Amino acid sequence: MDSFSVTATRSAELAREISESPEEFRMLTGERPTGPLHLGHYFGSIIERIRLQGQGVESFVILADYQVITDRDSMPRVREYVHGAVLDYLAAGMNPERTTIFTHSSVPALNQLLLPFLSLVTEAELHRNPTVKSELAASGRALSGLLLTYPVHQAADILFCKGNLVPVGKDNLPHVELTRVIARRFNERYGTVFPVPDALLTATPEVPGLDGRKMSKSYGNAIALGMSADETAATINRTVTDSDRRITFDPASRPGVSALLTTAGLCLDEAPEKIADRLGDTGSGALKALTIDAVNDFLADHRARRAEFAADPGFVERVLARGNERANAEAARTLDEVRQAMGTIYG
Amino acid sequence: MDSFSVTATRSAELAREISESPEEFRMLTGERPTGPLHLGHYFGSIIERIRLQGQGVESFVILADYQVITDRDSMPRVREYVHGAVLDYLAAGMNPERTTIFTHSSVPALNQLLLPFLSLVTEAELHRNPTVKSELAASGRALSGLLLTYPVHQAADILFCKGNLVPVGKDNLPHVELTRVIARRFNERYGTVFPVPDALLTATPEVPGLDGRKMSKSYGNAIALGMSADETAATINRTVTDSDRRITFDPASRPGVSALLTTAGLCLDEAPEKIADRLGDTGSGALKALTIDAVNDFLADHRARRAEFAADPGFVERVLARGNERANAEAARTLDEVRQAMGTIYG
Repeated sequence: MDSFSVTATRSAELAREISESPEEFRMLTGERPTGPLHLGHYFGSIIERIRLQGQGVESFVILADYQVITDRDSMPRVREYVHGAVLDYLAAGMNPERTTIFTHSSVPALNQLLLPFLSLVTEAELHRNPTVKSELAASGRALSGLLLTYPVHQAADILFCKGNLVPVGKDNLPHVELTRVIARRFNERYGTVFPVPDALLTATPEVPGLDGRKMSKSYGNAIALGMSADETAATINRTVTDSDRRITFDPASRPGVSALLTTAGLCLDEAPEKIADRLGDTGSGALKALTIDAVNDFLADHRARRAEFAADPGFVERVLARGNERANAEAARTLDEVRQAMGTIYG
Repeated sequence: MDSFSVTATRSAELAREISESPEEFRMLTGERPTGPLHLGHYFGSIIERIRLQGQGVESFVILADYQVITDRDSMPRVREYVHGAVLDYLAAGMNPERTTIFTHSSVPALNQLLLPFLSLVTEAELHRNPTVKSELAASGRALSGLLLTYPVHQAADILFCKGNLVPVGKDNLPHVELTRVIARRFNERYGTVFPVPDALLTATPEVPGLDGRKMSKSYGNAIALGMSADETAATINRTVTDSDRRITFDPASRPGVSALLTTAGLCLDEAPEKIADRLGDTGSGALKALTIDAVNDFLADHRARRAEFAADPGFVERVLARGNERANAEAARTLDEVRQAMGTIYG
């Protein structure tokens, strides 16, 4: 068995353990605030977080602002994206009483953990990380010190709150693997402080952007959760389709048509092939109209709640202030244990 | 002119500026607490710090505990070495009202600066650092993430308090150079927050260990400032000399004899050749006796003051608590400016 199938097996076990004893788990997840959250985030991770919250798992959700500059020179509109993400989390059903939503740069004691953790890994190990390699290639830039070390930083994100459960897609498994290595090495060297966290492989659907590529703000192919119904319609109407009036699901040769079908299918909870059959020879105009309705209906409640929260002045700020306060308290407690273990207490 | 001679010229200019307007400078210096401070530290850096303090330069002195694990697996006796260093600083004349003495691991907001700073340098730049290269070679280990990135961490040590003056020997010039690069890049990218600090090349004498190698705790060739007179005598008496009764200063072929002469010369403020002439044919026993007296006389007041401070229970702890409090206040103020500049303010 390769390490992926081991993890898949472990994930099945974990799902059972979670449903039996949710109180024994603490989940860490999060986002880089590089743009508005979109349907890809919704189906790819937010639904899963809400589900785990519903099962009674305590959660920490990090808005990883410093990770924005791993592969770019600045963080334009970061405040807007952070605020928008909080609105989307809450609108989707995250309960700020049970889920700690916080920003990376607001928790110095978390960030300090990067230092002892960096002593536990070699440069060669950092280089082997496939995600760092692919992000480096995608960035088309020289490897920055922050990109090289950000998996260690992610270990700090997970371990500062003693998170033991990290829902990830297959791509992010190496980060959790490195976190496990760091937790084990720290515990061996200085005495047990950290749990060795488990990756929970999430079987979430791949949500394509409207051009069939990965849905991404930077490709301009994304339906943001916070868009108005009209903006959604305009975005969907811009999708490039073909002139074949017969609607079929064929991602390889008909990326636009198929992306619309997948999107509508997710929102209607229906297989894209079935929607294609239903539409028959009606052409891409009808497909677009159906997709617009499906998305706008699906997001109507979310958007109504989002607008309500947004209309409450200072609400997002209060949620973040409280989340950051809780995250700082956790980080301070953990850093104290780290200091005790390492012997760096001088007072 | 190579960069070294540029810096030497700049250092001469700086010395003038410091004596004219000491209030415009803030100095950052420090040590890794890997062992007791010894005569090498005393003549190599502590005297210079006391001199600058006397000129009216405000100073921050860091006990860089996290840097202990750049090239080893743990930090044994770190608390003992930190306490000992504080005693030696105070005994040597550092005034804790004017000089902030603090420990690295106690200032999370300082350590957080590592993250934005890492985004400003490439891995290739980190690799080019000659000090990292030589420390890597000396350690005989795989390059750890912490050793690779510690020059960036040193930039945070200097810039967290907006230090603009860093007394260094030639070997540490590359660290200050990288700090200057980081300060400039941050200011260009986000707006001016940091000064671009100057290296002050110190023309301090090289203090050899008693075997002629560099004085170092790990070579067992060091006279610790905190030793008793008897321990000092025993250490000096263990020096390996030759059977030639004629005392001459010849570091290449007579390392032990010459190291004793240099040590005695520093303590007596006399050229080693002159001491050799004075001793003539009296043999190494007489040289050792003279050196023991010279060192013990020179350190007598230091050791008396050190013992007084050590006898005051909780004194060192109070000095560190106060220094750490001040360092945290500086770091919090600087981190706030960094947050404003980067736009990561969400409240």
